[in-house]
Amino acid sequence: MVEQVRYAMIGGGEGAFIGPVHRTAAAIAGNCRLVAGALSSDAERARRSGDMAGIASDRSYGSYAELIARESALPPQIRAQFIAIVTPNHVHAPAAIAALEAGFAVLVDKPLTDTMAAALHLEQVAQRTGGMVGVTHSYSAYPMVRQARALVAQGGFGKVRRVAVRYTQGWLATAQDAAGKQAQWRVDPARSGLAGAFGDIGTHAFNLVEFITGERMTRIAAEIRAAVPGRLLDDDGAAMFHLAGGGRGTLIASQICAGDANGLDISLWCEEAGLHWRQEQPDRLRVARRSGPEEIWRAGTDGAWLDPSALAAVRLPAGHPEGYLEAFANIYHDFAEAVAGRTPTHPAYASLADGIAGMRFIQAAHDSSVAGNKWVDLTEPEQ
Amino acid sequence: MVEQVRYAMIGGGEGAFIGPVHRTAAAIAGNCRLVAGALSSDAERARRSGDMAGIASDRSYGSYAELIARESALPPQIRAQFIAIVTPNHVHAPAAIAALEAGFAVLVDKPLTDTMAAALHLEQVAQRTGGMVGVTHSYSAYPMVRQARALVAQGGFGKVRRVAVRYTQGWLATAQDAAGKQAQWRVDPARSGLAGAFGDIGTHAFNLVEFITGERMTRIAAEIRAAVPGRLLDDDGAAMFHLAGGGRGTLIASQICAGDANGLDISLWCEEAGLHWRQEQPDRLRVARRSGPEEIWRAGTDGAWLDPSALAAVRLPAGHPEGYLEAFANIYHDFAEAVAGRTPTHPAYASLADGIAGMRFIQAAHDSSVAGNKWVDLTEPEQ
Amino acid sequence: MVEQVRYAMIGGGEGAFIGPVHRTAAAIAGNCRLVAGALSSDAERARRSGDMAGIASDRSYGSYAELIARESALPPQIRAQFIAIVTPNHVHAPAAIAALEAGFAVLVDKPLTDTMAAALHLEQVAQRTGGMVGVTHSYSAYPMVRQARALVAQGGFGKVRRVAVRYTQGWLATAQDAAGKQAQWRVDPARSGLAGAFGDIGTHAFNLVEFITGERMTRIAAEIRAAVPGRLLDDDGAAMFHLAGGGRGTLIASQICAGDANGLDISLWCEEAGLHWRQEQPDRLRVARRSGPEEIWRAGTDGAWLDPSALAAVRLPAGHPEGYLEAFANIYHDFAEAVAGRTPTHPAYASLADGIAGMRFIQAAHDSSVAGNKWVDLTEPEQ
Amino acid sequence: MVEQVRYAMIGGGEGAFIGPVHRTAAAIAGNCRLVAGALSSDAERARRSGDMAGIASDRSYGSYAELIARESALPPQIRAQFIAIVTPNHVHAPAAIAALEAGFAVLVDKPLTDTMAAALHLEQVAQRTGGMVGVTHSYSAYPMVRQARALVAQGGFGKVRRVAVRYTQGWLATAQDAAGKQAQWRVDPARSGLAGAFGDIGTHAFNLVEFITGERMTRIAAEIRAAVPGRLLDDDGAAMFHLAGGGRGTLIASQICAGDANGLDISLWCEEAGLHWRQEQPDRLRVARRSGPEEIWRAGTDGAWLDPSALAAVRLPAGHPEGYLEAFANIYHDFAEAVAGRTPTHPAYASLADGIAGMRFIQAAHDSSVAGNKWVDLTEPEQ
Repeated sequence: MVEQVRYAMIGGGEGAFIGPVHRTAAAIAGNCRLVAGALSSDAERARRSGDMAGIASDRSYGSYAELIARESALPPQIRAQFIAIVTPNHVHAPAAIAALEAGFAVLVDKPLTDTMAAALHLEQVAQRTGGMVGVTHSYSAYPMVRQARALVAQGGFGKVRRVAVRYTQGWLATAQDAAGKQAQWRVDPARSGLAGAFGDIGTHAFNLVEFITGERMTRIAAEIRAAVPGRLLDDDGAAMFHLAGGGRGTLIASQICAGDANGLDISLWCEEAGLHWRQEQPDRLRVARRSGPEEIWRAGTDGAWLDPSALAAVRLPAGHPEGYLEAFANIYHDFAEAVAGRTPTHPAYASLADGIAGMRFIQAAHDSSVAGNKWVDLTEPEQ
Repeated sequence: MVEQVRYAMIGGGEGAFIGPVHRTAAAIAGNCRLVAGALSSDAERARRSGDMAGIASDRSYGSYAELIARESALPPQIRAQFIAIVTPNHVHAPAAIAALEAGFAVLVDKPLTDTMAAALHLEQVAQRTGGMVGVTHSYSAYPMVRQARALVAQGGFGKVRRVAVRYTQGWLATAQDAAGKQAQWRVDPARSGLAGAFGDIGTHAFNLVEFITGERMTRIAAEIRAAVPGRLLDDDGAAMFHLAGGGRGTLIASQICAGDANGLDISLWCEEAGLHWRQEQPDRLRVARRSGPEEIWRAGTDGAWLDPSALAAVRLPAGHPEGYLEAFANIYHDFAEAVAGRTPTHPAYASLADGIAGMRFIQAAHDSSVAGNKWVDLTEPEQ
Repeated sequence: MVEQVRYAMIGGGEGAFIGPVHRTAAAIAGNCRLVAGALSSDAERARRSGDMAGIASDRSYGSYAELIARESALPPQIRAQFIAIVTPNHVHAPAAIAALEAGFAVLVDKPLTDTMAAALHLEQVAQRTGGMVGVTHSYSAYPMVRQARALVAQGGFGKVRRVAVRYTQGWLATAQDAAGKQAQWRVDPARSGLAGAFGDIGTHAFNLVEFITGERMTRIAAEIRAAVPGRLLDDDGAAMFHLAGGGRGTLIASQICAGDANGLDISLWCEEAGLHWRQEQPDRLRVARRSGPEEIWRAGTDGAWLDPSALAAVRLPAGHPEGYLEAFANIYHDFAEAVAGRTPTHPAYASLADGIAGMRFIQAAHDSSVAGNKWVDLTEPEQ
Repeated sequence: MVEQVRYAMIGGGEGAFIGPVHRTAAAIAGNCRLVAGALSSDAERARRSGDMAGIASDRSYGSYAELIARESALPPQIRAQFIAIVTPNHVHAPAAIAALEAGFAVLVDKPLTDTMAAALHLEQVAQRTGGMVGVTHSYSAYPMVRQARALVAQGGFGKVRRVAVRYTQGWLATAQDAAGKQAQWRVDPARSGLAGAFGDIGTHAFNLVEFITGERMTRIAAEIRAAVPGRLLDDDGAAMFHLAGGGRGTLIASQICAGDANGLDISLWCEEAGLHWRQEQPDRLRVARRSGPEEIWRAGTDGAWLDPSALAAVRLPAGHPEGYLEAFANIYHDFAEAVAGRTPTHPAYASLADGIAGMRFIQAAHDSSVAGNKWVDLTEPEQ
């Protein structure tokens, strides 16, 4: 029988969006089992939510501190092997740090933390403890995104010259839209951190750029703002950026784009070809070379011509659409494998370094915008 | 905690395509738990497959007869509450009949059986025993297919006048393509039954027509054939048909359409509007009215304007693609709810009557083709 | 200076749809000049229409007979070099025959004539006089349709196995829709001939099948009908057919498909690849091979990899959409070149034989439908 | 008979791209007639080109000065009524000024001139002489672009918040690509002017933004560059901008985007809906409102629900694709009507003010880029 890696979850209780996504993803992955949880910071709600999620009542805890303490006390063959953290951003660092100190591997939703300082603190703890940290950038876990990365990495397309990425949603288009549980914390600096839309979805766009190009973003000039009056955090913004290899790009992240659902699109043009991917039709990758017909690469287990990293991320033959949950499931699958000592060749989860890079992106975008769209480096801060 | 409905599986072992689909669908559904199985008719393979699927070794049986006998002997609160049958077609009827006789509900993969006679036998047993039978027509479980059905049923579009449905795949395009385990039994009359492609995928297309229009197909004139030399069963064919309400249609079912993946597309035109759906981009439904802009209806939990039957079939906000596994999960979810006495208003599984209708379609297509494309009625046989 | 070939037009006056299309097409072609016309059978209207079309008043005639008589009397270097016939169907044959008898080349709109008998009469006259006859099947003049034909003809894709073509429009969806000038004659047997939709657009679909496959259609089983009560001619129908090379196909032609504009789509599957073209996005041809990414072939003068027959049919670099009028212009260009003695390698106009084949299609579809969907051969009638 | 407005052309001889486009557009328009030309600055080539274009040899001149002098000397009822200028950019201003001084209306290809100074000079002459000046921004002449403008102007969508426009081509992706006649002058500062790609196609993107939003762009921060080593003018760049009404946007203009053809795409999001248009599929406009299905608005004479400005720009019923040449024809049609004293309600040509605005855009983008991406105002220069 496939070994089921045991995991616990912090956050993701009643009314949450991403908690159920993580749990369903783990169910699809097939190699993980949810054994414990502190699904809410409200003890009563945590219990109710744990019950709904199928967590045994004696392992459904009222706080993350309790979870870590009680699970640590369990025998190794029973206690959770990793902890997924799906709380609002401000809890990511304290919960992850506590979990790492107690010897747990942690899988953190993006962005890594609420602030740069918290991210660096988390990094230090991870380095000291040697604990495993993964970050859930779901979009780089899609098979055709991995195919895109492979095509660029193979080198035949030449250097990346220009990138255009945008992530536009419309669900926060009005002030009233922010009344729901999902929205509330995202527009609250105390819980979301330095950024609103640029943290919530901008980091996904950023990660996608770095993932596909295989390059670090080195500079950014951004203008971000709260377009809806009264908001304290950005809900709309754009940036220009440079890549380490000389390429240039633009990035839009906005949650006030009325009518858009989850509009993450990326185009990148290399010297010999352009690559184009839209999250809302994720099983296709359009490749246009300098000559000849355009190509539509399709996901599917029967695509013998696909890169191994893409093939490892599909379950079904072409034409049987896989979506967001399956991409997310790839992350759980690979992280669980890594926890069990079988790290995949091309893990679908983002690394701690990727998470730190995402925080640098948020900080730099903020600093650039405050300074009037000035170029800001995404270099590592002084030690 | 959500009650987990216990189920057993017959078939779906090593090398199977649809078995893992069923099990992953059940995992996504969240309200089912696989507790027993006879995953292969080869006892050793059954054991190995059961182990991979996470079935406890004492409930992984070597044959469906053993499964039914042994599960029947378990206490009610422990034994499987329904049995999923995912074997080659010729085993559907005997396994389902045995299960019904033993008091189990059964969820059968399509087509219902291998022959019309077997289907009618199964129907008699189901009527006599009063056992529940569901059929897994996965495509009518997609949210936008359900939206299409609702739009037609609401009546504002008027009567259905013309339907064009096609289901084209390319995976059996050559003789060599039929060497794999998936293909072998599908091209073998002893295991597949009366039809090849018309049974395997034609019944899906047929079901989709009846599901969306809400009408029975009454007559058919078909020409089916084995396009690849040496095949004993049809791999390619087409039909014209009549609907009970006067509409006319065409249906193509072919597995030799080189380059196609899982090309199930349907267009239907009512008096006031046309509706268009493609399985390979399942979260969109195109509606073109006689005047005004075309409409693209999108799946998503945030689509307050969607029909309740469509909303009940989505898990995520628009823009987060759900696919084939999620559609299939709707079937498991609803069948498990029904088994637990909470039958949904719009169950996602097809009924026994739908399954019987599918067999009449196969029989009539076969008879029409043999008779040189003659019109054949899909009426109920004499009792 | 490019020689301007002089042409006259019969039909296409006030309120006509296809007349202005022909004239604009000729203007785009650049090698034709409209010098005379009998744009209506009503003399006053003919004069008014001729004036609007820029025809000098002394060469704007009141009837086609007058046009032929008077133009014949002009010196060769002045009189029209060919005559375009764009009247309702029942005038095609008499006008064309009169023109041929007087020594003019004729370019006839489709379908060739109203009846099979008229078509055969026209054929005899053409053979006897040796006059040139072209037929305007505009869709085979699109560059990507020509590319499709070339790809099939090159042989690498193997034999054609299945074809699915449909031509669906919604403009005659209701009885009231047929009140306009365009519709009136099309639903009138005296002017349209044997068929309604199957003649008006079914012949286009038929021609497209024969053009791309390079094969003759040999048999047909059709069911056509007047779906709108009170109509005397078919407005909706479908057929199954055989190709000379063994391929099978389905064809839908309907003008009651509410919401559809000019929905001519074709898919054909050969042994090694499928080809897919949609008239409403004509500059793309989708090719899906048995393995590897799908291909999107694009029209454009910069497509050095395109077949010469496709390249000859484009004016602009890729990405500058050319449409219906440009396809039509290819017909005028090539017919004028042929009239001037410079017949192109791949003429964009259909031949008289193609036009005759279209009439056989109409006749066979009619006969099959009347006989209850019986198979009818499209063989040449006895001489 | 429709009055034919007589026009002359300067530039557009052998090997030119845009000259034949203008002439074919005029032919489609139907209300213009080319009567004179100075198609090249090389007298011999001018004569040969004029002959090919059907210009009588006595009105085919060897230079624009000769054309203006000689045409001016002709009787009013014979001489050209307007002059189209389709030379490389550096000739626009001197030719237009000479034509205006001689009393001719002028229709100038974009960008208006090579430099800001030349543009302001031209503006002064136009004001002094009262001569008509039109600019050919072909993309705002597409019916669905006009529909977009109308939908925004109607106000129901609220204010424009964000715009994303990009114009990406790949034809100058390598140094060798610039060897052709079309490319040579575009990469030469002496003939192209201040900008390369930002002038050639950036001004189209800029114009599209201002046209659809109905707002002026007020500020820009740009980074433009020659991506291909050795180029003297920009071939790639991006900008962020502000609109007068508070909206923000991004603009990409690049001619080194390998694999792209003529990729002009715009998305704009208002408070209540987003609008999306792609030049390569120009007859569709996607509109996504905050709730309900998405809408696809289609061009066609049968679209009674379309805005009059859109309806005025179509010739054919929906489903009969019109493209680039037809959009361009709208410009010629409307400019000729205006010259004849029948100015349309919604002229399809851009105004002199629009042309001046385009030059301010080029200047500001250049200045911003040189200053390191600094915000630069597009305000009117001091008088």
